[in-house]
Amino acid sequence: MNIVELIARKRDGAELAGEEIAGLVAGYAVGDVPDYQMAAWAMAVACRGMTAEETAALTEAMLRSGEVFSWPAGGPPKVDKHSSGGIGDKVSLILAPALAACGMAVPMISGRGLGATGGTLDKLEAIPGFRTGLSMDEARGVVDKVGCVICAASSQLAPADRKLYALRDVTGTVPSIPLITASIMSKKLAEGLDALVLDVKCGSGAFMKTTADALALAESLTATAARMGVACTALVTDMNQPLGRMCGNAVEVQESVACLAGAGPGDLRELTVELGAELFSLAGKGTLEEGRAALAGSLDDGTAMQKYREMVICQDGDPDAELPRAPETMVTAERAGTIARIDTEKLGWAIIGLGGGRQKLEDAIDPAVGLEMLVRIGDRVEAGQPIVGLFARKKDETGATAAVRRAITIADQTTSPPPLVIQRVTA
Amino acid sequence: MNIVELIARKRDGAELAGEEIAGLVAGYAVGDVPDYQMAAWAMAVACRGMTAEETAALTEAMLRSGEVFSWPAGGPPKVDKHSSGGIGDKVSLILAPALAACGMAVPMISGRGLGATGGTLDKLEAIPGFRTGLSMDEARGVVDKVGCVICAASSQLAPADRKLYALRDVTGTVPSIPLITASIMSKKLAEGLDALVLDVKCGSGAFMKTTADALALAESLTATAARMGVACTALVTDMNQPLGRMCGNAVEVQESVACLAGAGPGDLRELTVELGAELFSLAGKGTLEEGRAALAGSLDDGTAMQKYREMVICQDGDPDAELPRAPETMVTAERAGTIARIDTEKLGWAIIGLGGGRQKLEDAIDPAVGLEMLVRIGDRVEAGQPIVGLFARKKDETGATAAVRRAITIADQTTSPPPLVIQRVTA
Repeated sequence: MNIVELIARKRDGAELAGEEIAGLVAGYAVGDVPDYQMAAWAMAVACRGMTAEETAALTEAMLRSGEVFSWPAGGPPKVDKHSSGGIGDKVSLILAPALAACGMAVPMISGRGLGATGGTLDKLEAIPGFRTGLSMDEARGVVDKVGCVICAASSQLAPADRKLYALRDVTGTVPSIPLITASIMSKKLAEGLDALVLDVKCGSGAFMKTTADALALAESLTATAARMGVACTALVTDMNQPLGRMCGNAVEVQESVACLAGAGPGDLRELTVELGAELFSLAGKGTLEEGRAALAGSLDDGTAMQKYREMVICQDGDPDAELPRAPETMVTAERAGTIARIDTEKLGWAIIGLGGGRQKLEDAIDPAVGLEMLVRIGDRVEAGQPIVGLFARKKDETGATAAVRRAITIADQTTSPPPLVIQRVTA
Repeated sequence: MNIVELIARKRDGAELAGEEIAGLVAGYAVGDVPDYQMAAWAMAVACRGMTAEETAALTEAMLRSGEVFSWPAGGPPKVDKHSSGGIGDKVSLILAPALAACGMAVPMISGRGLGATGGTLDKLEAIPGFRTGLSMDEARGVVDKVGCVICAASSQLAPADRKLYALRDVTGTVPSIPLITASIMSKKLAEGLDALVLDVKCGSGAFMKTTADALALAESLTATAARMGVACTALVTDMNQPLGRMCGNAVEVQESVACLAGAGPGDLRELTVELGAELFSLAGKGTLEEGRAALAGSLDDGTAMQKYREMVICQDGDPDAELPRAPETMVTAERAGTIARIDTEKLGWAIIGLGGGRQKLEDAIDPAVGLEMLVRIGDRVEAGQPIVGLFARKKDETGATAAVRRAITIADQTTSPPPLVIQRVTA
């Protein structure tokens, strides 16, 4: 295979054959194709796109670069959820145990913070002792025992994706729908799933700022899942304000535990139930309506909480440990009016500024910091009214207060709150 | 400067600022910008293009990455010609001494074979002892003494271009008009020229197969020269058949010497005189018509030959040495008719197959092989009539004969020979 000629054809907008993409990825994984050739190819893809066939071939090639979970026949359906990332998105911590409580198995491979968004693994590591770095065998063992696990991708899982992802990050080739699709799907499909639900976030705190972009990603993801034989639905959901009230690491774990106890913010519970109902239905366990009832029931009757506690213990965490929380100070409204707009990504960067996320790869995360949203879009506020609580170390307060004020627009006219679920996409 | 953000903006089709391009190139030259980032940027340029301002900034940055010839004021005008490359194109060997004989100074930095085309340096090295690897000081010394030099780019000259060129070759980013423009012009302008003429080849034996592509390159090159303050004209010329009769290394030197003696094929002499006259006029020495007379005169009165001999001697070559020539066998016409079409690039590959060019970087060149065109487009031939002479080692003859036959189409209908100079382009 002539790699240069293959790159040149993609540069000219041609469609590559599946075996060409497979050869390229296999060559890259073992180091026969150097970074500079892969970077040129990735940029050609970012500029020229890929067909659905090519995207599926890339997904398959990256999936096959590593090991794949295989499950014995006859067990519970294997299901998972993937979110494209948003501020305050702690759904995974609640949904995985709730699904397990509803008789499904959830081998959830999750990630760390990226850009302005937090990461599920970083949040769980706020629990003293909690271990996210499991081998594939260990992860399978937790699923077999509890019904769910939430852990990091081991180095055996889709190593070509790991390598390409790092390269894309430093070559300006991250925002390409086919490359994003293949990266997400190769890791998710390596879990050996029967059904997958996608939460594609859209708005000021998401990677996809517009509904059109979010829909395009949702369609690419569901089409790829369909080609690969996995039942899949995507919900395009609002990320023009944080999900729930709490944003940070320890505070999000605490809010998740509240939700697992049948309480917690309404939007967080609603989205968790909605995503879970889709999987309930995709896995053939009943209708969407029955799924909603089953998921909500698991939160209200303590069975989801029980699964959560078992999972934490299996991953060496202490579910009863007190979590760290920095002292809370209030950011107040500078004027009266209606909360018109929240630049949610700026809130994410403010949390990172407080120490709640990484600015460089080697940074340590302070689990105790974060913020609490006291208002939502459409709320009336008076001048001087607290709008955001800041969990901060003294030295970081001033900058974060200013950043939060800049992120929140208070206007005279009234604003309607945005709908939480914008669109449902099936292949 | 954030290199990833800069690559991302080019990916999205934005125009980069001159200082951004300068920073990128300077960083690449010293190794701060890795190959994979430069490859991604080059592919973004190949897909999205560059404005004339960006192309000039890239040219300037690559030029400034190394040393530049500077010439004392008051000397003869410094002029040069660049050809985009074709089969049998030996104009440089004749034109450089002819220009010197007409009172101009020619610091000609030349190249090696590329793709199917031969290289001026490879041809000159068919002369026993001839040395193309001169330091910048040596090259300047030959120009001062003789009036012309033809040598390789030293490592001091535009090193960023050298590095980027090698990278483009292996990343599918060669055919990009702004990148080609900057590569050519950075090396040529490093010669410290007053005037430059460009021979942009067009047709079956050229990189640019269509007149539209050749015109686009000619316009980009002349616009860049204008921005950089160098008088410049481009001629778009025909490369649908070899230039002259001889193609190969030693045989092209011999044909050049014939031309320097006032003889040689008409098309070769015509193009040499035409390109020289443009420089004569651009350098302010007289009209185009006077330039044609001066150039032709230097070929007829022996002064160009004298300069050629002096240059060869100054570069340690022996102008009187007998050159190697492999035995000639004839490829004959398989049918009667008119020479309708010559796939000139295929002829180039046939010469490389005979050993007259490199298939891999480390290959040695056999100067004795090549071919002689006995027919031109539009010529009538009889079945069995010799159409091409092959200078070949016995073992290589069969494949070359078949390749040459495949490259030459004989048809029933008559065909007019194509014009040699297709269009003249000024900025």
